[in-house]
Parts: sequence; structure tokens; C-alpha cells
Amino acid sequence: MSQTLPNVPIQSTMMDFPLTIPYILERVNTYFGTNEVVSMIPAGRDAQGRPIPHIHRYTYHDMYRRTKQLAQALQDAGIQKGDRVATFATNHFRHLEAYFAIPCVGAVLHTLNIRLHLEQIIYIVNHAQDRILLIDNVLAAVLPALLPHCPSIEKVIVMGPLPSAVPGVLDYENWISLYNPDEFRYPQIDEKDACGMCYTSGTTGNPKGVVYSHRSSVLHCMGTALPSALAFSSADRLLPIVPMFHVMAWGFPWSAPFMGTSLVFASVFSDGPSLAKLMQDEKVTISAGVPTIWMGLLVELEQAKAAGTPYALEHLKSMVVGGSAAPESLIRSFDPFGIRLLHAWGMTETSPLGTASRPPVGVDFESDAGYQYRAKQGQAVPLIDIRVIDEHNHDVPSDGHSMGRLLIRGAWVTESYYLDEEGTRKSQVELEGPLGKQIWFDTGDIATLDHQGYMTIEDRAKDLVKSGGEWISSVELENALMGHPAVLQAAVIAVCHPKWDERPLAVVVKKPGAEVTPDELRAFLEPKFAKFWLPDAYEFIDAIPLTSTGKFLKRALREQFKDYVLL
Amino acid sequence: MSQTLPNVPIQSTMMDFPLTIPYILERVNTYFGTNEVVSMIPAGRDAQGRPIPHIHRYTYHDMYRRTKQLAQALQDAGIQKGDRVATFATNHFRHLEAYFAIPCVGAVLHTLNIRLHLEQIIYIVNHAQDRILLIDNVLAAVLPALLPHCPSIEKVIVMGPLPSAVPGVLDYENWISLYNPDEFRYPQIDEKDACGMCYTSGTTGNPKGVVYSHRSSVLHCMGTALPSALAFSSADRLLPIVPMFHVMAWGFPWSAPFMGTSLVFASVFSDGPSLAKLMQDEKVTISAGVPTIWMGLLVELEQAKAAGTPYALEHLKSMVVGGSAAPESLIRSFDPFGIRLLHAWGMTETSPLGTASRPPVGVDFESDAGYQYRAKQGQAVPLIDIRVIDEHNHDVPSDGHSMGRLLIRGAWVTESYYLDEEGTRKSQVELEGPLGKQIWFDTGDIATLDHQGYMTIEDRAKDLVKSGGEWISSVELENALMGHPAVLQAAVIAVCHPKWDERPLAVVVKKPGAEVTPDELRAFLEPKFAKFWLPDAYEFIDAIPLTSTGKFLKRALREQFKDYVLL
Repeated sequence: MSQTLPNVPIQSTMMDFPLTIPYILERVNTYFGTNEVVSMIPAGRDAQGRPIPHIHRYTYHDMYRRTKQLAQALQDAGIQKGDRVATFATNHFRHLEAYFAIPCVGAVLHTLNIRLHLEQIIYIVNHAQDRILLIDNVLAAVLPALLPHCPSIEKVIVMGPLPSAVPGVLDYENWISLYNPDEFRYPQIDEKDACGMCYTSGTTGNPKGVVYSHRSSVLHCMGTALPSALAFSSADRLLPIVPMFHVMAWGFPWSAPFMGTSLVFASVFSDGPSLAKLMQDEKVTISAGVPTIWMGLLVELEQAKAAGTPYALEHLKSMVVGGSAAPESLIRSFDPFGIRLLHAWGMTETSPLGTASRPPVGVDFESDAGYQYRAKQGQAVPLIDIRVIDEHNHDVPSDGHSMGRLLIRGAWVTESYYLDEEGTRKSQVELEGPLGKQIWFDTGDIATLDHQGYMTIEDRAKDLVKSGGEWISSVELENALMGHPAVLQAAVIAVCHPKWDERPLAVVVKKPGAEVTPDELRAFLEPKFAKFWLPDAYEFIDAIPLTSTGKFLKRALREQFKDYVLL
Repeated sequence: MSQTLPNVPIQSTMMDFPLTIPYILERVNTYFGTNEVVSMIPAGRDAQGRPIPHIHRYTYHDMYRRTKQLAQALQDAGIQKGDRVATFATNHFRHLEAYFAIPCVGAVLHTLNIRLHLEQIIYIVNHAQDRILLIDNVLAAVLPALLPHCPSIEKVIVMGPLPSAVPGVLDYENWISLYNPDEFRYPQIDEKDACGMCYTSGTTGNPKGVVYSHRSSVLHCMGTALPSALAFSSADRLLPIVPMFHVMAWGFPWSAPFMGTSLVFASVFSDGPSLAKLMQDEKVTISAGVPTIWMGLLVELEQAKAAGTPYALEHLKSMVVGGSAAPESLIRSFDPFGIRLLHAWGMTETSPLGTASRPPVGVDFESDAGYQYRAKQGQAVPLIDIRVIDEHNHDVPSDGHSMGRLLIRGAWVTESYYLDEEGTRKSQVELEGPLGKQIWFDTGDIATLDHQGYMTIEDRAKDLVKSGGEWISSVELENALMGHPAVLQAAVIAVCHPKWDERPLAVVVKKPGAEVTPDELRAFLEPKFAKFWLPDAYEFIDAIPLTSTGKFLKRALREQFKDYVLL
């Protein structure tokens, strides 16, 4: 073969331009410095002990300068590249400053989930070896129980005023006031350097840590803001109700400033009336939360409307829902208010945005087909790939009903867990695809795909009922049962069966004062499911045990009913 | 609980997920396979020799399979990683297939600008060492003059039918029909590998090449689709009138499939009536072109409206304008048609999107202030940084009137020119900034910035008039002069002056049959400019010489008036 080409392989002439959080901080100050950050924060308590809301308001210019003060304070405290700095806090402007200052000194923002049990928090702090802890004043009561078990923590900074000085802790405002923002210098940061970390709180085993990079976080910002994903820009005012102590509040503390979007925070105020008023007063255009938050808001909007004093929410164009599946009925209920619920799906391991559900071209959002699409978890957003595979690691048909394990790859998906070889090994699947052999992350979810790639989560893998080689979705049965007027809560679990291996048992909590029989529930389910899906038995209990994040603790139910004999 | 943790620096746990064109191709097939690619292509000529339009229509599924056939054909022809494959073609589906197939085999898509002079094209082909040439049937007449001077070209493929077989060239359809799409395998591609190249056609010196990477191109797609930039998604139908033979058609051939946006192509049909009809028939929602294209469209829309047969363009929400400055009057003229002109700015060296101009929050698009913002070139889009500096490399004040050299950095900005050390050296500026010392690209443009970072291009650096240490924008004077009813064209150039070094001379072409005197023109300009900006003299000529891309060839004017003596 004759060589006719130049000897030097061609190289791209493009600049090296690292994707880093410092770029975002500089950008928001340059272009959107006059846009706002509004925080509804607690200021004391009323006679009933409830927090009194106070509105704090400043601009991104203010945020920029205070963030640089905090960054300097961190450097002065000896924080260096790769060090972990923890936060234990709700959503507000000081937490936002920490979201930027910590990565901007090259350190790792470690957001602790305030809803975990103390033992889990202690495990996590020790596993991460956090050096500094920034904590909300309203959460500071945990310190005496926490600190003695966390020897890595050298300094505790309290965000928000304390009634009186506490020995050994620093006040955030006093601390940062010592520093001149103009003197701060960024360290050299590579885009693959760690910038943040979160631990997942599984129902079994120790929490597992995920470490985000500057690159993955910046790309996640770009992906979430796209029109085909969550769609926001400098014209928007965004209220993230999803907490900054869990999955980085879906990345909004970084993506909103990146896009110039004004931010509105609600701190501890997540009840319907507080949120409705905040959305109205601050002309919020987009918000994000879990289904239970939107259920609370819906009650408030309907009551206010019935009372002839509806909220003025004409600016609110969309509310993103995630965390768990939103029933189609909830999505429908908001449309009369002119508010579009948009389903998204993701997890700690995926930064979190994996999919978003908008109906395909030509399907009206408010048609029956449109609602069906909107109740799915949706299509993978740009730079994310998903697959659904069977037990033999083959792709299941994209027919909308073949279930399989949901795998994900992408520019902001984890490949491993932090210092956890066993967790890493269990979560990785190596698979051949169009782009070659690659590592995929096994979500632990069971899902279906339709022919346009719309994904629906059917179950957690461990909660699936495997009956005679067929899979039965506990989630679908539960959602149907909870549509019965007498049912408050329902959980479906697998129990052993001599012939079919497993069969579904429905565990039901009746609404107060309501009555219903197993036969009535079976008759209610029959038209909706194939016969072999119907639970073999129904047990009525007083309450379903919950996890720290409010999900059904099915492990406890399985334990309780482990010797159950199906008749 | 004692834990023994290894004392190693923390690493991100995120996956390695390269940003590549193959990812885009797989994505559009998976999620948006039923969305369309529509091409208005020439099919023969009418009695007057004008091309007859024919509508070709297929889906992204079709595009995907044909692209894989083309990719196989390229591999079978011996094309390997880094090889250059040239196109010489207008906008249509086959060119789109080349946009994907060439990078997907690891080769470099080299789009030749069909409007350049033959000698420039020959220089460029030889400099790039193109191995294969894909050329439109309607452009094939250039081959006999071109090929003898381009020994690197091993194979010529003609896109579209030829009246009769031509020896030595292959027909595109015959060629790709030999291959089975299912047999194609992607090579290993690194995100920093070259995927495309363009040469700039300066008015002096040899053309200079820019080589895009997979990474820069994918990031450019993400950046352009954002709501704060050009804003498009799978719900859109995009007509890029900007040519695929110049600056990669602003990246739309990659970004539209990436986002699932349907594409509409107009090939050789860029006149107002053809475009208006195509936009109407194909329900185009967004389009992009240079000001002269929109001027032609505006005439057609106004005539049709006056004739009582207006076009139905209710789907068309925005038209992006770039390439040169759009007068505010043009932007205003489209608003009554419900079409929003959106100004963007960029160049070959910036992939091209650098800035986009949307008014800030709170400023109405159709207010006087809104139009002033919309006539600026705008704010840097995400992942782009711009600066304006004086002769001492200091940033000029962001006051909206201090002029300086426009520098740019970003994830899709070139750092050098391909195999051109001198060009590279002249374009690089090393500057200290908030993120440290970095290389910036000198655009050769003179610009201003306002306090919110809105950028306005004032002039090309070499066209600026430097009078007694002050800078005078030739562009501003020209735009004002062309607002006079008797003036068809006006160019302002610098001529030598014993006291002030340089002073402005206005070279004016009068409209047919119109008359105007220097005194009248001076009186027309006086209220608009500082006195020292006013041209010292006015010369009337028959025509202003133009470059191959339709810009004023000021070099020729400066030559013509080099001995001009100001009185």
C-alpha cells in the first residue's frame, strides 16, 4: 500500500477549554449579575413553635463577591484540592455560595442528606473524611450527637444566626467577613477533577458514594437546560423545591446561574400554602419537586380557587416532577391551572437527569395520548443513553411492555462507587453496543421502552414479583390499588410459592373509617391486569413502614410476611 | 466504627463518555427516526435555463441507514482515521449523509466553499490533501479545471444524477448501493480527534484552515440549541439557509439531528419566493441566514401581503441572522409578520456561534430598547468567553462605546490555524484573566461591550479609521449613509492625513437616477455623530468592488484612493 499522505496525523486546532464550575461563577457575574437570588428562610419561631418566614433577596453580583469571600476563607482554613467539605443544610443563598466556593477552591462539595439516620450520617462523614462542616442554624441541634463520632471534622460553620454563641463553632457571616473577595485566586482545575459528592441511602448495606466531576456537572447543566429537557434561560425564575442536600438539587444551583436564571429558594417551607404564595409573589416560571410536594400544592390551589381567592400564577409555565412516579391524574389536575407538569427521571448515580417526558411531535400535551406520554419517565436527554436488557443481557423488544433491567450510560453517569469495590462490581455491566464494548451502570430498576424510546419505570429489581418465569410489576399494582377510594396505601410484595416460585401479596392500609374486602379489591383490579398479575392474597395492616426518604420499606414487609402461606 | 481508607487523592467516579458525532447519529435513529429531512433540490432546467425544484423527503431512519452505507463505502475506499474527505455541494440530504459518514469513519469532513475563486479552491484542496471529493451534479462543471491541479484526490463522487455517465467519476447512489448498512462498524474515536475542517477566505494572504474536533462540535450543538442561544428541539422544523459549504452551516446539520429537529434544505433555491413557499409548505419553525437572504424574503412577504395573498407562516417563530450586521430596520420589518429576527455572531474560527442577542429580562422584544438590543451582536453563549481590549491589552470599559479588539475563548474556538505558523502567531493573544493566564483568539474585529456584556461589532480592525489617536467606525458611518434615500451603497475608508494620521473618506454609489451632494450627505450625518467622525470628503463612483462572499472589497478601494489628498 502506497502512502501518499503527510506523515503528521491531523490534529484538531480547537482550544483546550476545561469545563469547570469556576467558569460558571465568572459567567453569571459577567452577564447576569443583576438577576436575583431570593430565599425564604426561617427567622425565629412563632408561639406554636413554627418557623417564621423571612424573605432574603440579593443579586448574583452579591452572590459572586460573597462566594469569593467564602472561597478565601476555605483556603485560609487549609482546604486544598480534593479535600471534602460537607454541608448539612436546606435551600438558601448561603448554601448556594457553598455550592460554588467549595468546587472553586478545588475541593469537593459533600452534601449530607439531613433526613438520614444519625448512624448513616456518621458513617458517611467518616467514609468521605470531611474536613469542614457547614450547617444550618435550624439543624445545629444534631451537632452534640454527631461531632464526637466524626474526628475528621476540623471546623464547624453555622449558617444563619444562633440565639447565642456556641463554643467551638464559627458563625458563617463573621467568618467570611474577614476576607476581601478581590484577593481570591482560583487554583488550577482539570475538568475531570472531583467537584461534588453524594451518598445514596439504599435500604440495605452501607450508603454508597458518587463523586461528580467539574466536567460531568457542567455538561449536566447544559443537558438539563435544553428545550428538549427542562428548558430554562435567563428569562426564567426557578424555584427548586428538590433539596440541595439530596442529589445536588438536580443540579439547579449550578445550572440556573450558568443560564442566568434567577433562583428562588424555600428552605424549610415546603407546604402548599407557603409554596403557592412564594411562587405568586416571586413570579416563579419553573419549579421542580417530588410528587408529594405537588399533591400538597394542588390541594392549596384548589382550596383557594374554591374560596374565590385563586393564586395568580400566570408566570408559572412548568413544574418538573421526579423522585418517584407521578400518577397521570396528578398531571391532569394541574392543567386547568395552566401549569404543565413535566416528568423527569434520574438518580444520585446519574447527577441526576436521565430522562424527560414530552409527548412526541404531533401529540397534543392535553390529549389522552399526551397524558399517557407525560406519565412515562420519557426519553433519554442529550448525552445520555439507556438500554433495557433481559437476564441474558440481550435488549428486550422496544414494544412498551417487555420488562427488563434498566441500564444507563452518559456524560454525567457514575461508573463506580467511591472506595466501594463490591458496590461498583454489582452495578457494572459490560455490554456490546453500536459504539463498541462499554461499561453500563445497572440502575436496579425494571423498565420498559416503547418504539420511540420512551421509558417507563416498572419496579425496583428487588421488588419485582417473579411468577413462573414472568415478571409482575409491584408498582403498577400498587398504583392501581391506591386508586381505590377505600385504600390509603398499598404495597405489593413477593411471597414464596411452591409451583410459581413467587406470587404477589398485597399489603393494604385502609383509609380511616373505610371498609373494603379482598374480593372487592380483586374485582377492582381485574379489568386492568392480566389474570396472572392479580395478587393471590390481601392483608390489611395499620401502617406501611417507610424509609428515611418516605418510600415504602418493602424489606421490612418481606421480613414480616416471610413465612406467609398462600392458600 | 473504625474504617481504614486508602490515602489517595479523590477521583471522580464518573464514566468516560466521549463526545462524538457517532453518538449523535445513534441518538437520532433511536429517538427521532420518524422525524423528517426534506430537501428542495434541482431536477433539470426549464426553458430559461433555471433549475426546476423537486421535493425529496425521507426520515432520519432512512438517513441513518444510508449514512452507514456511505461510511462503509468510504472505509472500503481506504479512508482511514484523519484522512480528509472534501465536499463541494449545496444543502441537501446527501450532503447531510456526508456530514455524518465522514466523521463516523474517523475521517475529516472538509467542506469546500463553492463561491471561492478556482485558484483558492485548488490551494485549499492541496493544503488539506483531500483524498476523496463529493460534488453536486449541478457543480460538476468545475471538475475539468480543478482535478488536474489536485493530485491528492483519488476518487470523485457525484451527488445527484448526471445527464450521462462521465468517465472517472462515480455516481453517489450507485456507489453506496453496494454496501449493507448493518455491516458498518465504527472505529475507536477520541473526542479530541478531528471531525471537520473549513478554510477562511480572507481578502489578503492564503486561506487559513480551522480543524474542528468531535468534542468541540458536540459541545457547539449543545450550546446552540439552548434556550438562551438559538432554542430548538424535536418539536421544531429547521431550514438552514446558511450553506453547508461554509462554516458547517452553523453546525445545524449536526445539532438538528442531535436535538431531533426535522431539517428542511433549499439547495440552490435561496430567492424570496422559493423560500417563502418552502417555509409555508413545510411548516418551518426556525430558519437561519444572512441579512441579504432576509431582505429578499421580506420583499416577497410584503408583495404577497399587498396582493392579498399572504403566506401562511404561523409556524415560523424565529429566524436567526448572522454573517454581517442586520440593520435595526430589517429586524423591525419582520415583527408585523409574527417573525422574530434573532441576531447571532460568529466566524469560521468559532464553529461559528459566539454570541446571540436576546433583550435582557424585563425589556420587551418589540420596544425601542428591545430593538436596540436585538440589533447588537449580543451576549456570549454558554461555554464562550469574550473580551474587548485596547492597544495595551487592557480591557476597555464596558460602557457601550469604548472600542477595542474583540478576543474570544471557548469550547469551540480555534487556538491555531492548520499548518500555518504565521497565521497562528498573529491570531493568538496571551492574557491574564480571572481563571489565570490563557490563550485568546483575536477575531480581527473591533467591538464594544455594554455593562451587561452585550457586544456590538464596530468594524474590522483593518478598516477602522484612526484619527488623531481616536477610532472611527467605518461600519457605523456606512450604515448611516445607506439610510439616505439617494444612496445605494457606501464604503468608508481611511486616507492619509498629515496632521491626524488618517481621516475618513466616504465612497458612495448613488441610486439610479438619484442625485445628492457632499454637503447634503454631511448635513444628513451631522446629527448622528461626533463632529470628528464626519468624513472629510465624499467621492461618487459607479460600483463598489465586492469579495467572493459579497462583502465590500475595501482593499481595492484603499488602493484606488491611496494618493487621495484631503483638501
